[in-house]
Amino acid sequence: MIVGGKPYQSIWTDPSNPEVVRIINQNLLPFEFRVDTIRSPEQSLEAIRTMKVRGAPLIGICAAFGVYLACLEAGHHKDPEKYISQRAEELRSARPTAVNLTRAVDRIMQKIAAVKDPEEKSETAGREAADMMEEEKESCLRIGQYGLEIIREISNRIKGSPVNILTHCNAGWLACIDYGTATSPIYLAHDQGIPVHVWVDETRPRNQGARLTAWELEQHGVPHTIIVDNAGGHLMQKGLVDLVIVGSDRTTRTGDVANKIGTYLKALAAGDNNIPFYVAIPSSSIDFSIRNGMKEIRVEERNPDELRKIEGIIKGEIHLVSIIPESSPVSNYGFDITPARLVTGLITERGICAANEKEIIQLFPEHFYS
Amino acid sequence: MIVGGKPYQSIWTDPSNPEVVRIINQNLLPFEFRVDTIRSPEQSLEAIRTMKVRGAPLIGICAAFGVYLACLEAGHHKDPEKYISQRAEELRSARPTAVNLTRAVDRIMQKIAAVKDPEEKSETAGREAADMMEEEKESCLRIGQYGLEIIREISNRIKGSPVNILTHCNAGWLACIDYGTATSPIYLAHDQGIPVHVWVDETRPRNQGARLTAWELEQHGVPHTIIVDNAGGHLMQKGLVDLVIVGSDRTTRTGDVANKIGTYLKALAAGDNNIPFYVAIPSSSIDFSIRNGMKEIRVEERNPDELRKIEGIIKGEIHLVSIIPESSPVSNYGFDITPARLVTGLITERGICAANEKEIIQLFPEHFYS
Repeated sequence: MIVGGKPYQSIWTDPSNPEVVRIINQNLLPFEFRVDTIRSPEQSLEAIRTMKVRGAPLIGICAAFGVYLACLEAGHHKDPEKYISQRAEELRSARPTAVNLTRAVDRIMQKIAAVKDPEEKSETAGREAADMMEEEKESCLRIGQYGLEIIREISNRIKGSPVNILTHCNAGWLACIDYGTATSPIYLAHDQGIPVHVWVDETRPRNQGARLTAWELEQHGVPHTIIVDNAGGHLMQKGLVDLVIVGSDRTTRTGDVANKIGTYLKALAAGDNNIPFYVAIPSSSIDFSIRNGMKEIRVEERNPDELRKIEGIIKGEIHLVSIIPESSPVSNYGFDITPARLVTGLITERGICAANEKEIIQLFPEHFYS
Repeated sequence: MIVGGKPYQSIWTDPSNPEVVRIINQNLLPFEFRVDTIRSPEQSLEAIRTMKVRGAPLIGICAAFGVYLACLEAGHHKDPEKYISQRAEELRSARPTAVNLTRAVDRIMQKIAAVKDPEEKSETAGREAADMMEEEKESCLRIGQYGLEIIREISNRIKGSPVNILTHCNAGWLACIDYGTATSPIYLAHDQGIPVHVWVDETRPRNQGARLTAWELEQHGVPHTIIVDNAGGHLMQKGLVDLVIVGSDRTTRTGDVANKIGTYLKALAAGDNNIPFYVAIPSSSIDFSIRNGMKEIRVEERNPDELRKIEGIIKGEIHLVSIIPESSPVSNYGFDITPARLVTGLITERGICAANEKEIIQLFPEHFYS
């Protein structure tokens, strides 16, 4: 999508320098726009752990390129195979909630398992990572095309007044490669001239909504308003929300949705006010191996400093300030589970389906088992 | 309650200097504990507007003392009666949502209406304000005693494990005069040796939970944990919340509850998880003149800077940092309305009742009309 008038992706390779990968350092946004260079699997791991890259699809791709960079470096190590599989194992478990990480790493590892020649191995890994990146982009575009029809229908019904869409966290192109998941229908609608307005949840504690989603929308020219996470229910009660679209870090084959902490509260409010609540996901985020979100998805507890401290600007410089006294304990769960019963539908790259096993498997019959 | 080992109120008069009123400057908490002196109705108004004092019961009392201070000063003005009624009018409308402000000011004005002698007038006003202050304290203590039984019953049921109570914003003694509303049962339970643990919602955008409620509980020695506003639903899903108690700025005679923005979301989550959701209110916060919270309670839109900027500490000094780029629009509703159907019960100074007109009026029959 557009940044400063130019099209960007959240991660890309550089044909003139195939031994590195470029990312947008998302920790500095919206205060500073900086492109970082990833030169090793360790840097790839660090980018995922420190959330320079975040969002289920993006961290999967970043980990995939991490395995590629490990293949490039493997020759410098005594036991190249061991080096690659150790780096792969670290990348697999860099963060616990998203299924994309393990899936991406496993796919590359499987692809290169039989390749013996070192150069061919890294070429294969690089090609596979690049293919996965293109597939994610393509997925997001398709999600946008399907979701666009939901927005168009509402727009027709409300006769061209702006369609008010609430979103939580950042399921934008920064979290993916391009387009985003939850934002993809919004960008497509905006680009086609359908008037939209986005309520952007601040998304404590890391403020990805206020910092990233608002920045994305601003750069692309989409009308939006930042609100605190507490406000969504009230806006829905007042009839100021026509549609909720969020992303997901992991969705079960039955439609339970793990997403940024607080999503469940918005789903409850949408339900209470008869507002459609959609989850936009590439199927790479669906964990077809599990059926019960509450029981089977491990929700990571993150560093309490995410709550204690916040970054902001004083006279043009970024500072980290403490907003909670050291003496008070804090708890910091990263995600919550929205039960399928609260989800109006899933917007996937193959179409829209209800959040239940039957409809999900109808769209993805290759994952059928009884 | 206890601060630094000594008992305090949020507002008090000083027998050795009856021409002033003392308050705790809540804007500086928890970073600095400072007592401010209010010497004029203008300072009283400023304290309410800038939220040095906040919370429905406290701003009512602060406004009442503001009228008293206006009476003291009235002699210096050409038309003393006009001066008093102008100050009273300003104080009445210092903030729009709480009914306590208008009620407190009206009560004093009514009391002094017939008093002609200036000295007697200010004495009457001062006595009335002090009476109201004592009544608020007494109300909070009684709320605590009734609410304590809810906690005791849960404690017995879970056989002495700590009772996990979630609260939103600050309905603590800082918002009242002493004890608090939502916190009063908690303080009483703690003081009686019933093990309790409080989940303290951060309460964006002004962070009254993280800044004030956590500070209060810490000073008084009550176990607690600060969480982001997004986390409550997840904790409830995991069975980590036994009870929700919040305060209210204004409650209708039918039990619709206006409280800090985000309360409605917690009520929905409590309902979805069969967790009792209580609202602790002195009857001074009940607006017996209205029946429909959504239609009849005006919810104030507050300064967008509350979202854009946040106060914190860098190396021991308080700084204000910008956390949202200037270019993004923000919206900042201060309250939301929790419909009576989501409220398990109201804890009042006369006992506990269901959130419906019949039971409310049974407790407060002087407000009966059909």
